Amino acid sequence: MKIVFLGTGAAVPTKNRNHSSIGLKFDGEILLFDCGEGAQRQMIYTDISPMKINNIFITHLHGDHILGLPGLLQSIGFNGRTEPINIYGPPETKETIENILKIGYHSINFNIKVYELSTKNPMKIKDTEKYEIYSYPMNHSVPTVGYIFREKKKPQLNLKKAIELGVEVGPNLKRLKDGYPIKIKNGKIIYPEDVLLPPKKGICIGYSGDTTPLEDFGEFLKSLGCNILIHEATFDSSKKDNALETMHSTIGDAVNIAKIAGVTELILTHISARYDDKMDDYINEVNSLNAENNNLNITIAEDFMKYPLKSKNK
Amino acid sequence: MKIVFLGTGAAVPTKNRNHSSIGLKFDGEILLFDCGEGAQRQMIYTDISPMKINNIFITHLHGDHILGLPGLLQSIGFNGRTEPINIYGPPETKETIENILKIGYHSINFNIKVYELSTKNPMKIKDTEKYEIYSYPMNHSVPTVGYIFREKKKPQLNLKKAIELGVEVGPNLKRLKDGYPIKIKNGKIIYPEDVLLPPKKGICIGYSGDTTPLEDFGEFLKSLGCNILIHEATFDSSKKDNALETMHSTIGDAVNIAKIAGVTELILTHISARYDDKMDDYINEVNSLNAENNNLNITIAEDFMKYPLKSKNK
Repeated sequence: MKIVFLGTGAAVPTKNRNHSSIGLKFDGEILLFDCGEGAQRQMIYTDISPMKINNIFITHLHGDHILGLPGLLQSIGFNGRTEPINIYGPPETKETIENILKIGYHSINFNIKVYELSTKNPMKIKDTEKYEIYSYPMNHSVPTVGYIFREKKKPQLNLKKAIELGVEVGPNLKRLKDGYPIKIKNGKIIYPEDVLLPPKKGICIGYSGDTTPLEDFGEFLKSLGCNILIHEATFDSSKKDNALETMHSTIGDAVNIAKIAGVTELILTHISARYDDKMDDYINEVNSLNAENNNLNITIAEDFMKYPLKSKNK
Repeated sequence: MKIVFLGTGAAVPTKNRNHSSIGLKFDGEILLFDCGEGAQRQMIYTDISPMKINNIFITHLHGDHILGLPGLLQSIGFNGRTEPINIYGPPETKETIENILKIGYHSINFNIKVYELSTKNPMKIKDTEKYEIYSYPMNHSVPTVGYIFREKKKPQLNLKKAIELGVEVGPNLKRLKDGYPIKIKNGKIIYPEDVLLPPKKGICIGYSGDTTPLEDFGEFLKSLGCNILIHEATFDSSKKDNALETMHSTIGDAVNIAKIAGVTELILTHISARYDDKMDDYINEVNSLNAENNNLNITIAEDFMKYPLKSKNK
């Protein structure tokens, strides 16, 4: 499992930061969160393959989060994609995708299924064998949703106990792990609960999109047991007024939400273009907050940064 | 005057080449030819300022030539542009721009005037004091026009003759140069034709867009006195079949058109992604054609290449 930051800038691109886009590689799949202009080209410099993206999650319909969609969709069409693709986003995402498909001549011959999400209530929007994804209403100048990716971990097998009970090493161990009872040689039935330990905690990642700080978002992440928060921090804390005016967050805001959520990792992204040439204030604040907070590791995202997570799924 | 290559790739972007876009700086103005995805970010690395673009010329409505428009227009809107912008393109450009403006929330508060050009006949589409621009119907899989930029040079003043005739050094010299007769001290009238030499030849640049080779395009460039041709050469000449199939040109095709046009400079662009890692065949053919042709200088365009032209307008 790997998070690949494809773009970490704010409204306009800079020399160092492209528009917002984050790829999440998990178990052979790629989940894409936001898709700013140029995302398809950013991918070329990483191991994110556009053809392997089946699910795209859009936080809101500002250009810096969506204008990579036309090119991405046209390019995978040009390269012969036939598998359907799912796009999740706030209300009006459907109409936006329809308009995107009207631009220019292209050869998109795959189905695009659009899911419009609530900006009033959290939703569980995806539930697979290995993970679930939630959306959460955020607070920006236009309808916005954040997302939470939560890995599902299977219960662990207590191998020693299973062997003590007479289970032979072989397919029966997997059946027990998968939750099925089995019959051993002496005719005795062994039930999963006899040999399973509670599952290890999986990875759970919250992504804020653009927003003012929302304490209830932090509480929601806590209820899901999130350990990583990717939060926008467009400004350093001395620019709180700019953040309020533009409905964004500061570094301090993001740290506050991270503490409420109880995550151990906070990654700051959506960094204003004003810092492109002089990042000192921003870095100094993060350094000082890192020194103050023993239980929270704060990282400033950079384009092409890969976030290596301690997980068996690489 | 300077040509800035913002993107020199073909259908899909590569590590080295972004989608098609060319900026032409002339006398304080910037004319933009095609605007592939990411053009606004490419500009950051050059001295092309998006805010100074008043005229955009689109060759055809394939994504790799237009998908930078939504972001460019939204960003200059975000940065407070109020001056109108002109966009020229083939039929359906108007509808395309309308659909582009429907994508996402943005703050475009300037007027966009769209001019749809003939794909049957050449047109003079712009005529200013200092230059004129023509469109020319090309031959691609979708309606396509090429463009010709032609500098207007004023007649030169024969200063020696003017002074011999009794014109005093001062404002009267400029009046004569501007085409007005003047009266000198002895009451005699001096007419412009008495003291003006024919104008020097200005810069004239043809740009093909995507096309099969068109000999009549070459002849049109010749009739205008063009000296520079920017021609697509998606493939080297060994891939003529690919070029025919996709309605593109090879290096050899472009050289042929350049010879018909009688230009001295040929710049090849829109280079297939297949050459990104192995450019040898392409370069070898260009080297060999350069060796064969004494009167033609062939250059392979690269992203961010600036083409310095010998002109007083820098």
